[in-house]
Amino acid sequence: MKENKKAVIILSGGMDSTTLLYDIINQGYDVYALSFNYNQKHNKELNCAAKTCEKLNIFHKVINLGVLNEIAPSALTRTDWEIPEGHYEEDNMKETVVANRNMVMIALAASFASTRKAKHLFYGAHAGDHAIYPDCRKEFVEAMKESIKLCDWSELELHAPYLNVDKGDIVIKGKELNVDYSLTTTCYNGREKACGKCGSCQERLEAFKKLGIEDPVEYE
Amino acid sequence: MKENKKAVIILSGGMDSTTLLYDIINQGYDVYALSFNYNQKHNKELNCAAKTCEKLNIFHKVINLGVLNEIAPSALTRTDWEIPEGHYEEDNMKETVVANRNMVMIALAASFASTRKAKHLFYGAHAGDHAIYPDCRKEFVEAMKESIKLCDWSELELHAPYLNVDKGDIVIKGKELNVDYSLTTTCYNGREKACGKCGSCQERLEAFKKLGIEDPVEYE
Repeated sequence: MKENKKAVIILSGGMDSTTLLYDIINQGYDVYALSFNYNQKHNKELNCAAKTCEKLNIFHKVINLGVLNEIAPSALTRTDWEIPEGHYEEDNMKETVVANRNMVMIALAASFASTRKAKHLFYGAHAGDHAIYPDCRKEFVEAMKESIKLCDWSELELHAPYLNVDKGDIVIKGKELNVDYSLTTTCYNGREKACGKCGSCQERLEAFKKLGIEDPVEYE
Repeated sequence: MKENKKAVIILSGGMDSTTLLYDIINQGYDVYALSFNYNQKHNKELNCAAKTCEKLNIFHKVINLGVLNEIAPSALTRTDWEIPEGHYEEDNMKETVVANRNMVMIALAASFASTRKAKHLFYGAHAGDHAIYPDCRKEFVEAMKESIKLCDWSELELHAPYLNVDKGDIVIKGKELNVDYSLTTTCYNGREKACGKCGSCQERLEAFKKLGIEDPVEYE
């Protein structure tokens, strides 16, 4: 029997998941990309995801998840709540947590994968994430692997290959794969240019600086 | 410190989850009930859930999950696809599977629980379910318990106390608790009266018959 290389990827339009998309295409997977619109201020990332998929000629679908904003309010989604400045390690960045967002996205991506008879589900959690987000922890991902394996009669595999990889190494990998980082966005504010001040921007800037590579994205 | 008795329950409006609602109120939990509208033909159950919560003076919210219908089509949600007749054990009942529905509902209920700082999450999977639904299996529920525990920094507990209990025993429990079964619905067709022919109706009828109790719901 031919190996099932059908794969679903959760594609935010940020650097990590975009690099992962190039990575798995390079590995020969037959890819369906899903993005989620949960009223995030940085919904510019959805356009980035769409453009990348168009460029790579990949199936792409944006799933409306406005209900998550309603259930779990956060500075990331509410217009009456400002995105905090500073590093991820700082306490106020916790305001950007959307409670259980990753499980919700993984669960819906698994529904999609089951109906398309895909065997693989990829998501781009990386080593820098776990500091404030409980659902980026290794233990959480391990538990979800087991849940995903059992959610359908035919086993579905959850892969998070960047879980122990930091942002710098992701960019190195991306450069090898010729990732077009001008079609990615990282800033949580979602204005025309990146703010350069939120935790997300700071981490991106540090990764490019460390490597001595120029970030193709414009900053305010 | 006072014990955290805040609990979220996934309430379909069917017999099992309605009995569980009475059960946990009886145990002293402070309950928030959530129902999900995924365009199920039997959306009459949402009205039942609302009426039960009104009667019991319990918080109730219906979460719009139309997106699940779009992602994972099923005979349960598509008007162009008829509900099969016969027992659950029969192969054609598989058409009523909504892929990964339970994980999606549990994940969203956990988001809700996290933002409300509830410690408990209840759902009414029961012993009769597992035959055709992979996400009602004991192994699946055990895996989800671990995932739910880790999805937030403060541990959230997933409870499925009827996992080894059959429908007949649920009705016995319900009679003790004075559950108003006229405010529950079980039929998958969702017409004015229950069809009496789908797997869901047959199971309900058998449970009442076995106990020699009259089912207060009207049949066609």
